[in-house]
Amino acid sequence: MIDEKATEELARLRRSIDNIDAALVHLLAERFKCTQQVGALKALTGMPPADKNRERDQIARLRTLATDAGLDPVLAEKFLAFVIAEVIHHHERIAEASNAASGRSRQT
Amino acid sequence: MIDEKATEELARLRRSIDNIDAALVHLLAERFKCTQQVGALKALTGMPPADKNRERDQIARLRTLATDAGLDPVLAEKFLAFVIAEVIHHHERIAEASNAASGRSRQT
Repeated sequence: MIDEKATEELARLRRSIDNIDAALVHLLAERFKCTQQVGALKALTGMPPADKNRERDQIARLRTLATDAGLDPVLAEKFLAFVIAEVIHHHERIAEASNAASGRSRQT
Repeated sequence: MIDEKATEELARLRRSIDNIDAALVHLLAERFKCTQQVGALKALTGMPPADKNRERDQIARLRTLATDAGLDPVLAEKFLAFVIAEVIHHHERIAEASNAASGRSRQT
């Protein structure tokens, strides 16, 4: 009987986790749309892909938000580091593609 | 002039990124509330912290959601792997604490 109740409770919690994950994926999609625009803008104007001051401000802000929301601030910082690493990797690819394209146009 | 416009555009995009990040942190806080309950339930009933079938289903579902939302499915999978690793680490700590507590109660 305890096992059946535990299984039901686990299924209930997993349905909530699935709903939250769907929301997270959709927000991440919007976030990457924004950072793709940032990447294109940086490549166009020659700004470097990474910006340490911006990252420091983001980390400080997210740690505070996390603490207020009852989330371990270390986890929020790790999450942001993961997302920023993906974004910078993407910006570098955009910059490389942009350089390669301008190299090709100079050669022709 | 182009630089001023680019700086303004960058600031505009960063304000959107900051709003999205605040939403992501709050959703992550809710997600970890759910997984903390899952961890406590698993520790109580002796279920193992990790569940490979569940993870496989989650990955397949999030990859589909990501593709529909215009997000790279590889990135969604990496994101889920990051979150699941944190959760399992947390479940293991709960299970260890629970075992240590029951060990202490047997000794007394």
